[in-house]
Amino acid sequence: MASNPAAKPEAVSDVQGDGRWMSLHNRFLAEAKEKEPEVLFVGDSLIQQLQFTPIWRQMFEPLHCLNFGIGGDQTQHVLWRLANGELEYIEPKVVVLLVGTNNHEHSAEQVADGILAIVSLIQKHLPRTQLIVLGIPPRGETPNKLREKIATINSRLAESLSGLDNCTFLPVDPGLFVSAEGLISCRDMYDYLHLTPAGYQKLCEPLLDEIQNLMKTYVKVDSTSVETASMAGQLAGDMS
Amino acid sequence: MASNPAAKPEAVSDVQGDGRWMSLHNRFLAEAKEKEPEVLFVGDSLIQQLQFTPIWRQMFEPLHCLNFGIGGDQTQHVLWRLANGELEYIEPKVVVLLVGTNNHEHSAEQVADGILAIVSLIQKHLPRTQLIVLGIPPRGETPNKLREKIATINSRLAESLSGLDNCTFLPVDPGLFVSAEGLISCRDMYDYLHLTPAGYQKLCEPLLDEIQNLMKTYVKVDSTSVETASMAGQLAGDMS
Repeated sequence: MASNPAAKPEAVSDVQGDGRWMSLHNRFLAEAKEKEPEVLFVGDSLIQQLQFTPIWRQMFEPLHCLNFGIGGDQTQHVLWRLANGELEYIEPKVVVLLVGTNNHEHSAEQVADGILAIVSLIQKHLPRTQLIVLGIPPRGETPNKLREKIATINSRLAESLSGLDNCTFLPVDPGLFVSAEGLISCRDMYDYLHLTPAGYQKLCEPLLDEIQNLMKTYVKVDSTSVETASMAGQLAGDMS
Repeated sequence: MASNPAAKPEAVSDVQGDGRWMSLHNRFLAEAKEKEPEVLFVGDSLIQQLQFTPIWRQMFEPLHCLNFGIGGDQTQHVLWRLANGELEYIEPKVVVLLVGTNNHEHSAEQVADGILAIVSLIQKHLPRTQLIVLGIPPRGETPNKLREKIATINSRLAESLSGLDNCTFLPVDPGLFVSAEGLISCRDMYDYLHLTPAGYQKLCEPLLDEIQNLMKTYVKVDSTSVETASMAGQLAGDMS
């Protein structure tokens, strides 16, 4: 894997000149020291933007989540961050990983191996933590080669992660987002990549179920919310 | 200006291979034909992400706004979109423009001239529309050269747009976002560039005042909202 650029830790170079990426990494280090998250989310903008949605505030925040998502990150960048302190000082019950959609210069094999390298690193640092690897959602309004590449990455992940202890691969059913005609709607992905609140709702319902199974705990939700009513029906009891 | 890459219309090349940028442009064309917006927002991700905030839903949506923001766009990309149909079929009362923070390969002079080229194009297509050009907000957690460049762009814009008919330059007071120690907080900009709902609130209060002055109309707001209470106090009457 050493010759695979997607699996070789690399800091993002500060081409814009404002040092934002390193500022974010340093902030995550400080948050890791300060807080004791039960659930850690790691990845790119798809993780990062989740924290501004109703589902995050209503369903994930009560679980004591930290969000280490950085827009634009590729696998090698997440690998660098995790190898440089973001997993120190914390021992979450669950880590959720979603990354790979930005590795456009790398082959499906390289991206999948990059994600597997992150899985190995997380399991080495946090041997008792349950890891959930999310499949990469499809993208682009109409059928395109990038969707095919993403499908290849996802099927390699499903195969490689099958049977691995303390690790669950959670596939994203393309039918969630892709119509019979092969179209993705801006109602789910406002720019045919990033998710709207409705898109996050679809992506996160199975994820929330899985997290709760793993945590063996339940969240008390406000069942008056229309947006979360379908989830609320599945949940009961108080948070432990 | 012809030799200035920031002022020469250019479509974004589809390096990722999913055609998203052109899909968005085509969707904007369809929206322009379908809807009769009173206010049009044009720009990059700072415009695009505004539409997922409480202030958009509560304050801007009732004004019949369209949002033609695309993440990552530079001045030459917005210029291409506006020169290729996004201003056809509509005649909004107000256009709000915010772009330039992504032109990291161009000098302050080039970026300012790129923005002025967009201003000229909008005024040529929509001679009766009031144009508001927003200053580019500062960025980066700590003081950096990009902030200085942005300040130079903003002061050139203030000078060049001063006295221009049907055009208002709305500066962004750096003090809104930058502390006495020179720091930007993640409470305002979650990644030291993109705005949180609280950051948008700060940016948009003077903008909303300006839009309402220009439209000579008032919005009825729900004064029970804590987030908009400060604005609600300044507003009265019904929307015409």
